[in-house]
Amino acid sequence: MKADPRNISSIASELKIDTELVIRLLTGFILNELGKVGTPRAVVGLSGGVDSSTSAFLAAKALGKENVFGVLMPYATSNPASHDHAQQVIDALGIEHDVIEITEMVDGYLGKVSDADNVRRGNVMARARMIVLYDQSSRRNALVLGTSNKTEFLLGYTTLWGDMASAVNPLGDLYKSQVWQVASALGVPKEIVEKPPTADLWAGQTDEEELGFTYAEVDRLLFFLVDKRYSGERLEEMGFDPGFIERIELTIRRSQFKRRLPIIAKLSHRTIDRDFRYPRDWGV
Amino acid sequence: MKADPRNISSIASELKIDTELVIRLLTGFILNELGKVGTPRAVVGLSGGVDSSTSAFLAAKALGKENVFGVLMPYATSNPASHDHAQQVIDALGIEHDVIEITEMVDGYLGKVSDADNVRRGNVMARARMIVLYDQSSRRNALVLGTSNKTEFLLGYTTLWGDMASAVNPLGDLYKSQVWQVASALGVPKEIVEKPPTADLWAGQTDEEELGFTYAEVDRLLFFLVDKRYSGERLEEMGFDPGFIERIELTIRRSQFKRRLPIIAKLSHRTIDRDFRYPRDWGV
Repeated sequence: MKADPRNISSIASELKIDTELVIRLLTGFILNELGKVGTPRAVVGLSGGVDSSTSAFLAAKALGKENVFGVLMPYATSNPASHDHAQQVIDALGIEHDVIEITEMVDGYLGKVSDADNVRRGNVMARARMIVLYDQSSRRNALVLGTSNKTEFLLGYTTLWGDMASAVNPLGDLYKSQVWQVASALGVPKEIVEKPPTADLWAGQTDEEELGFTYAEVDRLLFFLVDKRYSGERLEEMGFDPGFIERIELTIRRSQFKRRLPIIAKLSHRTIDRDFRYPRDWGV
Repeated sequence: MKADPRNISSIASELKIDTELVIRLLTGFILNELGKVGTPRAVVGLSGGVDSSTSAFLAAKALGKENVFGVLMPYATSNPASHDHAQQVIDALGIEHDVIEITEMVDGYLGKVSDADNVRRGNVMARARMIVLYDQSSRRNALVLGTSNKTEFLLGYTTLWGDMASAVNPLGDLYKSQVWQVASALGVPKEIVEKPPTADLWAGQTDEEELGFTYAEVDRLLFFLVDKRYSGERLEEMGFDPGFIERIELTIRRSQFKRRLPIIAKLSHRTIDRDFRYPRDWGV
């Protein structure tokens, strides 16, 4: 578990991607989706991590640096290194940015509840950042670019209505191991690509420590389980630990509620998200 | 536009519902959906308006008053009458409740941006309330009950990731004119049912003034346009104003993005919300 094989050469061959092709597809996606809305400007929350850095690099490549706005949203206890890394992205891309601290917002609520543990506190922070990003997107007539990857989505390792909230998400179909490859190919600073992933919601937090497995391990399992639809039996034959398979299957199922809209009680002939379904960009 | 026919006898016959049946269906829905998760407790944000009051009444009927928690979340400028109305609901149902002011949270952000207009301010407030509700639901091991109705959903007259955010929504398939009927049948205090609807996001705001038409007018059009799929021609023959029809059609299309999840760039064989689709309660 301490092994941290973010070295790209150690990524399982199944997860290797043609980064040039993927970058072409994703910049095309961003340009196309934002172009449809008629305001080809994007707002990205920069945490200093590899996901948001990659989103910002893709957006700048797709839209031009003048159309990308970075927002840094530190909390009082955020690691100063996170700020430095976000600043490196801003400097590398030459994009405009704002620093908007969420401490007053977050403490304005947390000060009223004495019993919030780290998870609850982290969710409040992630959602406070959503508020800032959406308000800044409104102010700048821009869309909020998503930064959640496929690993996070499938594990539900993300905050509903928080970091999951965006208008368009270029990373949602890339496993973390694949985001690293795209990041490297785009020239995201090495320090950002190689550091241990963390949501930086409390001091010393790292994703892999909290999850109890590495991204390299889980991404390979997710790929065979989800993308290839391999049975548990076949996965065991491949050498995956039965307990690990079971745990991840359960984690995926139990977090499904985060990947769907709220359930509406059906009463009429045309219920929203049931019989009344149109593409998201129907109106543009 | 000043006419405000919330008197139930003046609701168009097409929008009349069998309230007894609807209440039976909706209490069954709440009991069933929450029962699946194994924690049959609900949190409802009580604004003092008819929608959240109706949700709370339905929840208490379905789950028992001891399993429903009301949360009042006033902002500094909220109308004191809203608080009184929410208190009437609490008293009528005998449910537990908390009052958690959002003023510090909201001003903790708005104090940093000088240019926010009423709409931006209103969105920040609606999203701050989502943060409180979700944190309280986590604290109480309960689900957040939705309070958005079909009229609001279709017009996009609601805040994305704000009041739209919930786990289960009993009202989302009822037009506002139908919520009034259910509210009356449930015994929601008359004062709440009959007052002019308002999001109370700024002083003196009323929905119908802001929208430029009454719920009675728009609900009737929405019913024929959406539920009955009538053509524009047929609607004109029925006497609907062509400009009004066009405006509402456009409003529905342009707000579609609020009724769908963020778009994820497709790269793999199984993309979340595209090929990877399971019911929301898959894991329970």
